[in-house]
Amino acid sequence: MEIAHSLQQIQSSYIREILAAATDKNVISLAGGLPDEKTFPIDLMRPTLEAIPDMVEVFQYGATAGYGPLLEHLTHTFKLPDSHMVIATTGSQQGLDLIARAYINPGDTVIMEAPSYLGAMQVFGLVQANMVTVPQTESGPDLQALESAFKAEAPKMFYAVPDFHNPTGVCWSLDTRKAVAKLCEQYNVAFIEDAPYRELRFSGEALPMVSDFCPQHSIVLRSFSKIASPGLRIGAVTGKVSYLEPLVKVKQGADLHSSVPMQALLHGLLKHDNFELHMSKIQALYHERYQVLNSELKKQLPESCKVKDVDGGMFVWVTLPECDTFALAKQLLANGVAVVPSPVFYPDESQATPALRLNFTNAEPNELVEAVSRLSTVLKAL
Amino acid sequence: MEIAHSLQQIQSSYIREILAAATDKNVISLAGGLPDEKTFPIDLMRPTLEAIPDMVEVFQYGATAGYGPLLEHLTHTFKLPDSHMVIATTGSQQGLDLIARAYINPGDTVIMEAPSYLGAMQVFGLVQANMVTVPQTESGPDLQALESAFKAEAPKMFYAVPDFHNPTGVCWSLDTRKAVAKLCEQYNVAFIEDAPYRELRFSGEALPMVSDFCPQHSIVLRSFSKIASPGLRIGAVTGKVSYLEPLVKVKQGADLHSSVPMQALLHGLLKHDNFELHMSKIQALYHERYQVLNSELKKQLPESCKVKDVDGGMFVWVTLPECDTFALAKQLLANGVAVVPSPVFYPDESQATPALRLNFTNAEPNELVEAVSRLSTVLKAL
Repeated sequence: MEIAHSLQQIQSSYIREILAAATDKNVISLAGGLPDEKTFPIDLMRPTLEAIPDMVEVFQYGATAGYGPLLEHLTHTFKLPDSHMVIATTGSQQGLDLIARAYINPGDTVIMEAPSYLGAMQVFGLVQANMVTVPQTESGPDLQALESAFKAEAPKMFYAVPDFHNPTGVCWSLDTRKAVAKLCEQYNVAFIEDAPYRELRFSGEALPMVSDFCPQHSIVLRSFSKIASPGLRIGAVTGKVSYLEPLVKVKQGADLHSSVPMQALLHGLLKHDNFELHMSKIQALYHERYQVLNSELKKQLPESCKVKDVDGGMFVWVTLPECDTFALAKQLLANGVAVVPSPVFYPDESQATPALRLNFTNAEPNELVEAVSRLSTVLKAL
Repeated sequence: MEIAHSLQQIQSSYIREILAAATDKNVISLAGGLPDEKTFPIDLMRPTLEAIPDMVEVFQYGATAGYGPLLEHLTHTFKLPDSHMVIATTGSQQGLDLIARAYINPGDTVIMEAPSYLGAMQVFGLVQANMVTVPQTESGPDLQALESAFKAEAPKMFYAVPDFHNPTGVCWSLDTRKAVAKLCEQYNVAFIEDAPYRELRFSGEALPMVSDFCPQHSIVLRSFSKIASPGLRIGAVTGKVSYLEPLVKVKQGADLHSSVPMQALLHGLLKHDNFELHMSKIQALYHERYQVLNSELKKQLPESCKVKDVDGGMFVWVTLPECDTFALAKQLLANGVAVVPSPVFYPDESQATPALRLNFTNAEPNELVEAVSRLSTVLKAL
C-alpha cells in the first residue's frame, strides 16, 4: 500500500535515531530532551494513585475536551477569561497536531523561527504546510524579517517557543514579546505559543507570555512533561473558544479523549500542597547542572566555539566554525558523547549555521564534565 | 482563522449530542456505546496500580510504538509471526486515525459497509477520502457489490467490523470471511479489520478473523475498552511491519507515544490470572441484558418493526417502516428513551433504510424493559 503524499517527505526523527544509538552505556548523551527521572514527583502522585481505584468514573469514556476537575483547575491556574477555554490533550505534542489539522490546508503558510522545534516541523510537514522561517536573534525573532514575512506570505499562524527555546535556549525580551503580539494583531496572524520550558526558569525574572499581549490572536500549548512526568502524556491547550472548538472536533476523530486516570493523576499532583516546592527543587537541580556544563564549556572549548548563556530550559546551543556538523556528531558519538547537530532544526537544512544542541537535564554533573572533555578533544582537533 | 477544508464537512458526532441530551435522569439511554461501569476490572488492576509508583521508567518518555512488556505480551497473545508487529495506540480510534493519515490522499477510495461505524466515517472524512459503501447482508457485505466496487474503484482499503458490527450487530459468516480475504488478495486491497466487540461473544462459536485468511493484506485494530476500561485509552494495531512502520512515523507527530503508566496497567490486567474469568462474567452479564431486550422487543414492538438476533457485541438493530427517523428519535427522547437513528451511520444519509440502533450494555434489565415499553408506545402510534 503506497503511503500518503503527506508522509513521503517526513523523515523519522533524527533525534530518536541518535537516542537509539546513544543507549550504549559508554556514551554520555546530551542529545535527548529528557527530564531527569529523579525529578518525577512520584510521592506527590501517590495519594491520587491510591485513590484512583475508587474513582470509577475515570475508567469510563470521558469528554473529548478533558476531565472536568482538571479543566476547572487549569482554567483557574491560567486565569482564563470567559471567552477562553482549555482542552486536555495527549501531550502538548497532540495539541500542536490538532492545531495543524484543524487549520492548515496543504500550501498554507506557517511562520517559524529558524532554528525551530523538530516535532513542530514534523506536524506542519504532515499537513503539507508551507514553512517559512525568520532568523532568531538573541532577544527573539528578527522583527523586520517577521513583519516582511507577515506582509509577503499572509500566513495563518506563527509558531514559536518564546521561553527557553528548543534548541537555542533563547528567551524572548519583553519588547520583542510586545512587538510580536502587536504584529500578530495587525496582520491577523494566530500566535501559537509553545511553552513547555516556561516553568524551568532558574535565573532572571519571569516575563509575561506573548499571548498575554494578544489574547484574541493566540493559542497556548502547555506541557507538564518537564515539571511532572512525560510518561503520562497529558498536556493542555488554551485559547479563545472559537479557536479551540475545531480542535475538539479533530480530537474526537484522533483519539476520542485522553486517558482519564492520567488526567485525574495530573490534577491531584497540580493541586498538591508541595507541588510548588517540587518545582523549585527541579529548577535548583537543573540550575546546578547548567552551571557545571556552562563553566566547563567556557573553560575547555576552543575560542572558535561560542556558548550562549541561558536562564532556564533544558538546552544550550554551541555555535561552531564552518564544518560538517553531521560528520562531527558522528565523530563525537564514536568518542562517547551524543549531541544533536543544528541542521535537523531547520526546515531547510542548507540554511543552518553550524552548531550543536546540548541537553543538561539528564546527566549528572560528573558526566557533564566528562562529556565536555570528550567534546573539546574532538573540537580542538577539528 | 478559517478552519481547514478537511474539517469543513465534518459534523460533530450526533451520538455525542444525543448523549449530552440523554443525561436527564428521566431518560433511559440506549443511545451510547458505553460498557457498564460495574464491569470495570478495578480489583484486577489494583496490584498494578499499587506497583506503579515503583516503576519509575513508566513516568519517563517512552517508545513511540509502545511499552515493551505490553508489546511482547500482545505479540504472544495475538500469535504474531516475525513478519508482523504491534503498536500500542491511544485507543483503537487512534489506530484507525493513524492508518488513514499514513495511507489516504484526498480522493483516495475507501470501501466500507453501509451502515458503518461513525468514528470511522469521521476519520476518513478528515483525510478527505472518497468513501464508497457496499450494502450489508445478514452474513456480511454483499460480495458481488464488493467485487464490483474493488474492480471499479481500485480502493486502497476496505474497512469493516466483522464481529458484532456497529451499528447492526451482524457477525460475518465463515464463508464471507474467506471470500472477502480472497478478494482483498486478488485486488490488492488492504483489509482494515476493526475488532472492538470480538471478545463480547455470548453465544455461538468464535470464527477465525478475516485477517487470518489474508495476513499479508490486512491491519487489525484491537480495543480493550469493552473488556477492560475505555478511560485508559489504550488500544493496539497489528499487521505486517511494512504496513505499520508508516503508522509509527505519524504517531511520532501525533502524540509521541501513548501513556506509559496506562500501558503498564493494561499489561498487568491482561496477564492477571483472573482476566479470563472476568471476561466470561462480562459476556454473561451482557447476554442476560441482550435476552431481556430482545424478548421485550419481540413481545412489544409492532409487527412492522424487525429485530435482528445477535450473538454478541453491544447493539441490536431495529428496522422500521418508512419514516423520518430523526423526528422519531427526537420524539422518543421526549418520551424518555434515547436511541440513535440509522442515517447517522451512512456516509450518504439519503441511502439509509429506516432503523434504530439500541445499546443493551449500559442499562439494567428493568430499565431495558421500561425503555422498550416507551419505544413501543411511540412506534405503535407511528
